[in-house]
Amino acid sequence: MTKPLNIGMIGYGFMGRTHSNAYKRVNDFFDLAYRPILKAVCGRDEQKVRDFADNWQYESVETEWQQLIARDDIDAIDICSPNNTHAEIAIAAAEAGKMVLCEKPLSMNVEEGVRMVEAVEKAGVANTVWYNYRRVPAVTLAKQLIDEGRLGRIFHYRAQFLQDWTIDANLPQGGAALWRLDVNAAGSGVTGDLLAHCIDTAIWLNGRIRDVTAMTETFVTERMHNLTGKVEKVGIDDACAFLCHFENGSLGLFESTRYARGHKALYTFEINGEHGSIRWDLHDLHRLEYFDHREESIIRGWHDVHVTDGDMPYMDKWWVPGLQIGYEHTFVHQVADFLEDLANGQPSSPTFREALETQRVCESVLQSAAKRSWSTV
Amino acid sequence: MTKPLNIGMIGYGFMGRTHSNAYKRVNDFFDLAYRPILKAVCGRDEQKVRDFADNWQYESVETEWQQLIARDDIDAIDICSPNNTHAEIAIAAAEAGKMVLCEKPLSMNVEEGVRMVEAVEKAGVANTVWYNYRRVPAVTLAKQLIDEGRLGRIFHYRAQFLQDWTIDANLPQGGAALWRLDVNAAGSGVTGDLLAHCIDTAIWLNGRIRDVTAMTETFVTERMHNLTGKVEKVGIDDACAFLCHFENGSLGLFESTRYARGHKALYTFEINGEHGSIRWDLHDLHRLEYFDHREESIIRGWHDVHVTDGDMPYMDKWWVPGLQIGYEHTFVHQVADFLEDLANGQPSSPTFREALETQRVCESVLQSAAKRSWSTV
Amino acid sequence: MTKPLNIGMIGYGFMGRTHSNAYKRVNDFFDLAYRPILKAVCGRDEQKVRDFADNWQYESVETEWQQLIARDDIDAIDICSPNNTHAEIAIAAAEAGKMVLCEKPLSMNVEEGVRMVEAVEKAGVANTVWYNYRRVPAVTLAKQLIDEGRLGRIFHYRAQFLQDWTIDANLPQGGAALWRLDVNAAGSGVTGDLLAHCIDTAIWLNGRIRDVTAMTETFVTERMHNLTGKVEKVGIDDACAFLCHFENGSLGLFESTRYARGHKALYTFEINGEHGSIRWDLHDLHRLEYFDHREESIIRGWHDVHVTDGDMPYMDKWWVPGLQIGYEHTFVHQVADFLEDLANGQPSSPTFREALETQRVCESVLQSAAKRSWSTV
Amino acid sequence: MTKPLNIGMIGYGFMGRTHSNAYKRVNDFFDLAYRPILKAVCGRDEQKVRDFADNWQYESVETEWQQLIARDDIDAIDICSPNNTHAEIAIAAAEAGKMVLCEKPLSMNVEEGVRMVEAVEKAGVANTVWYNYRRVPAVTLAKQLIDEGRLGRIFHYRAQFLQDWTIDANLPQGGAALWRLDVNAAGSGVTGDLLAHCIDTAIWLNGRIRDVTAMTETFVTERMHNLTGKVEKVGIDDACAFLCHFENGSLGLFESTRYARGHKALYTFEINGEHGSIRWDLHDLHRLEYFDHREESIIRGWHDVHVTDGDMPYMDKWWVPGLQIGYEHTFVHQVADFLEDLANGQPSSPTFREALETQRVCESVLQSAAKRSWSTV
Repeated sequence: MTKPLNIGMIGYGFMGRTHSNAYKRVNDFFDLAYRPILKAVCGRDEQKVRDFADNWQYESVETEWQQLIARDDIDAIDICSPNNTHAEIAIAAAEAGKMVLCEKPLSMNVEEGVRMVEAVEKAGVANTVWYNYRRVPAVTLAKQLIDEGRLGRIFHYRAQFLQDWTIDANLPQGGAALWRLDVNAAGSGVTGDLLAHCIDTAIWLNGRIRDVTAMTETFVTERMHNLTGKVEKVGIDDACAFLCHFENGSLGLFESTRYARGHKALYTFEINGEHGSIRWDLHDLHRLEYFDHREESIIRGWHDVHVTDGDMPYMDKWWVPGLQIGYEHTFVHQVADFLEDLANGQPSSPTFREALETQRVCESVLQSAAKRSWSTV
Repeated sequence: MTKPLNIGMIGYGFMGRTHSNAYKRVNDFFDLAYRPILKAVCGRDEQKVRDFADNWQYESVETEWQQLIARDDIDAIDICSPNNTHAEIAIAAAEAGKMVLCEKPLSMNVEEGVRMVEAVEKAGVANTVWYNYRRVPAVTLAKQLIDEGRLGRIFHYRAQFLQDWTIDANLPQGGAALWRLDVNAAGSGVTGDLLAHCIDTAIWLNGRIRDVTAMTETFVTERMHNLTGKVEKVGIDDACAFLCHFENGSLGLFESTRYARGHKALYTFEINGEHGSIRWDLHDLHRLEYFDHREESIIRGWHDVHVTDGDMPYMDKWWVPGLQIGYEHTFVHQVADFLEDLANGQPSSPTFREALETQRVCESVLQSAAKRSWSTV
Repeated sequence: MTKPLNIGMIGYGFMGRTHSNAYKRVNDFFDLAYRPILKAVCGRDEQKVRDFADNWQYESVETEWQQLIARDDIDAIDICSPNNTHAEIAIAAAEAGKMVLCEKPLSMNVEEGVRMVEAVEKAGVANTVWYNYRRVPAVTLAKQLIDEGRLGRIFHYRAQFLQDWTIDANLPQGGAALWRLDVNAAGSGVTGDLLAHCIDTAIWLNGRIRDVTAMTETFVTERMHNLTGKVEKVGIDDACAFLCHFENGSLGLFESTRYARGHKALYTFEINGEHGSIRWDLHDLHRLEYFDHREESIIRGWHDVHVTDGDMPYMDKWWVPGLQIGYEHTFVHQVADFLEDLANGQPSSPTFREALETQRVCESVLQSAAKRSWSTV
Repeated sequence: MTKPLNIGMIGYGFMGRTHSNAYKRVNDFFDLAYRPILKAVCGRDEQKVRDFADNWQYESVETEWQQLIARDDIDAIDICSPNNTHAEIAIAAAEAGKMVLCEKPLSMNVEEGVRMVEAVEKAGVANTVWYNYRRVPAVTLAKQLIDEGRLGRIFHYRAQFLQDWTIDANLPQGGAALWRLDVNAAGSGVTGDLLAHCIDTAIWLNGRIRDVTAMTETFVTERMHNLTGKVEKVGIDDACAFLCHFENGSLGLFESTRYARGHKALYTFEINGEHGSIRWDLHDLHRLEYFDHREESIIRGWHDVHVTDGDMPYMDKWWVPGLQIGYEHTFVHQVADFLEDLANGQPSSPTFREALETQRVCESVLQSAAKRSWSTV
């Protein structure tokens, strides 16, 4: 029999939906010791939070996150509110002995992140950060292939995350769905929002980053602010790119922007090693491309692997070969792994501590861009 | 408030899972008047059906479909059992005044199909057949583009459904997961299993088929039968291809096989019209390729449309642009449409009557192959 | 030192250009015993043939092909004139002891083809037909992979040749560049023009075809004739498709049309065997896709082979890995092979006799379509 | 009538072949006032240069470039010898009043380049540098689309040139075919060899580069030297990447390496503008991808343009739609343009002066990498 795990969700935006869906679906597909229960959802706008609760069948609502944390019937706090709320909530939740699942990026900066790590580790509570792309089956398969040594020594790692949704200069910043454009709520622009994903995956697949040289750009420098109604200076970075050295001696190249026409959410990475290469792309997330130089020359070429067979990561839980899954399944996988780690008393990767490393790189990137010089992580 | 709609599911195999998932998820994403309730699931093996019920949280189980139909607390019967059970169950369900949702193909042959149509129409019960691929957003978008006249007069329609899972001569036939290889349970091989999907989509997009010339092949002629334990003659078609004329004057080319190495579930179609063309493929179901000859020559080329924006069919219900959905969502969409049609008192396409037309084509195809001559539908 | 081989070219259209280019270039890249000399070109319009000769640096011109054949300084006759002239010229050339290189298709029908084969074989002259696509390096590589047994037993062969240039009903038929639309000059439409290529490759790669069931269509039934200035009935097939059995037991599916919007010259084929599959497409002729089911599942996928390495067919003669060649090179390869075969006293494939087999299939296809019944080749 | 233009070629390696082929073919396809004559080829190894001359039908040979320049019957000097010879030869040729066609990169460094520009401009001789990729029809089409303003304001430019041929640590450096690995002959590694191409195209398409931050890497630090037979320190860069600002305010990202498994000569670029985007890749050089955000959302997607129609740059000279050309044609196009510019008394782009700008960027890149700081061009 499964044990209930009572979830208290904070925030009900886009991430609130992806997480709620994951909690509701995970036991239909995974055989687990725990079953998440949608106990309560918390948001400041009572009507909106009630609507959300009705839609997703949460048992109750709260309008103050402190109340949610105070409830005895909540086992785990899931933080989906804007970045500038992560630290305070997570630390309070940990101190209250709750498990904490925090949406990425971990924090506004390294200093906050350090305190968050200290809090969860001191409290000894289960903790994880939603860098969900690790659990795309094709990405998990990439990890497996690399760990098996198939690529040999790594020479190059490159990643990009390209979007095009903020090109319109009339798009306002701030408030509700647009808090990602408000530097006070988001901390940074594409660096924390998009590059953080690329960096998390990169560290997971290729190890730590040693130093960086970066540039950022804000193409639209003033926008109307949704909360004040005034045209204000834009504080976020619209685009960010950096070069880096990994600790393993390989070279890295990262780029992110919201000004790349034709790309909606094109997260791609490619790794080149001594024996082979791997590349992947979020727009066709169910595929992995793999090249092995040791094959016979006349049939050597990039393998286009349709990651849907039952022996591929997570795929025995879903349908049959050839039938693809999508974006939302990455969250289901993360919940499944979290619950399994919980049952086994293991930390669930990426932990707050692991996510802090991504935060360090982000901070070095922003510093390097500001100073126009190389920055050591 | 939503009204409950009590589902009685018959069968708990692969399709049992896809349908159950659809019923459970639909209200999280679609705003509907009804909410499906997983009331009961029915199967002959009590232990297996209980396990399935536990997994998916069905409220109860039955081991005789007649008992299920007899229950007052069941509103709709969903038939996921092998093809040779469809007619008897559907007719009994209709006579009992239940709505009927029947997995494809409708029936073993046209004669059965005619009786099924008569039964549901006489009873006046809501009915539909799970030709789910119509509800892939990219396929629904193709329908929209064609209906808007963007392709002009149609010249060509071609479709294929290629798999490779039965090449091993040691694979047995019959029983449980392999009933599709047993002609007594399935009625035919790839024709009813795979080509039926292609034909349903084709009729929907391009109208009726007038006549066909076909060939079928059984590459492995004897297989051990799972139920008898003996090597028996294989009665199904491993491969089937046909040429045809559509009523609109266009030419059709259809092929299906389970002997195409490298293809797991490669359902593709392409339509060529006077002004443009469309093509689609199930291995990347979230994309539609579109060609418009009226564009300027120097920028004219196939458009690779990533069908994830909010103004594309069904996609406003899911995530954000660039984030793909997968195979299972087609069933969610069909349930959503069925429930909306139910609320509006409309037939829900494809109805039994519409699915019967596909059955007619399948039967003509098999006859043509048997007689080695053209056959009129 | 190379020996000169004096070429007498008949016709100066599109094929006249591709062949002339091949003769001029072959010795720059291939080490051969012979060097083709552009001795004379023959055409009925003196001004045009002179212009062509000037452009390509032919040494002389003729306006009567009989005169060309009669010249002592001509070693080989190359026939690039319309299909309805092939038989008469080829037979006369053979009787005059000239080698004959004939543009495809060999003839207007099987009866003519038989006489042509008899003529060249009786005369003992070197002969070949320009089915140039065999010499695309990727296609030659496909042949090599199949001959090495990598695919195992073959189940399926499918090919298509799709174009879109005759959809405009105002396009006239006949005369000069449009003789391919005039049944009297061309013999048939897409069957002899496009499917003949598909059939030649198929027989080469997969062996003989046993029987066919076909359909043809003429979408535009009347067109202005360029020579008469009158609107006349169109005699050619605009589209043709057929199903067939190969002698090795595999199934074939062929289609060709000039009414497929979005495709300029999309010749594609795919072969599915027990162990693997191959596919190729003329729009990216420098690539071969290869699938080997015996690879480990987790890295199994179609190999995208960029056929530009030095150990791939013909590619050691050209540039360096990664740098693609194009369409015209197939003709250079055929000339190179012809000259090497000549030096070795070998027949040069496809010979007239081999090309006659393609003619037989074409004729069976047209008969089957006319009679609406299966036709044995 | 065409006027002869007597070519004196220096060097007979890979580039010697591509240029020779271009001179021999150009008049077959382009209608020009001049016809290049392969008058003489010069190389230090007499036997090898004679073999080359025989192969390509050069009229004569020289073993001292000074002798070649001194000949009255030579109109133009084509420099295909290693980079460290460009300046001396080019300046001497210009002083002798010869036209100069110089293989890229222009020079070993900016200082040399400045003297070369001064020499040709002072002498008033026609001059050009073989940045051949500008004349890929798809790239020329990209230029046209940008110049027409179709992309609007440019935000991003990214380019990469990835190869994998020097990963083997046993590959020696220097001498004959491997001079590109010897810093004394080549000046730099991938920066001058590969990035120079990317930079030339970028400046042409997107304007000047203002500043850069770069990193270089030498993965294999010692190699046997072919000329000395000793293991020596490797002086070239195996990989180089840089970030930059263009003068138009857009951001640039460039990367080149010879350590990217799976890529033979993958030169790619992508440009993102306000209204649309363009991307191209050398492995399928006959295609251009184009995105226009102003299209209707439901059919919006990247256009895959098969650049083979007669109204696309250069393509009216070749075959028919759908039939691709290859790498070597870029050199034919450059010769054609050079001869046309010559006839019109126009400079032929890229001139020495234009190529010097690329040299400046290369030098800034190498300086930035050496100093680990931003460098202004």
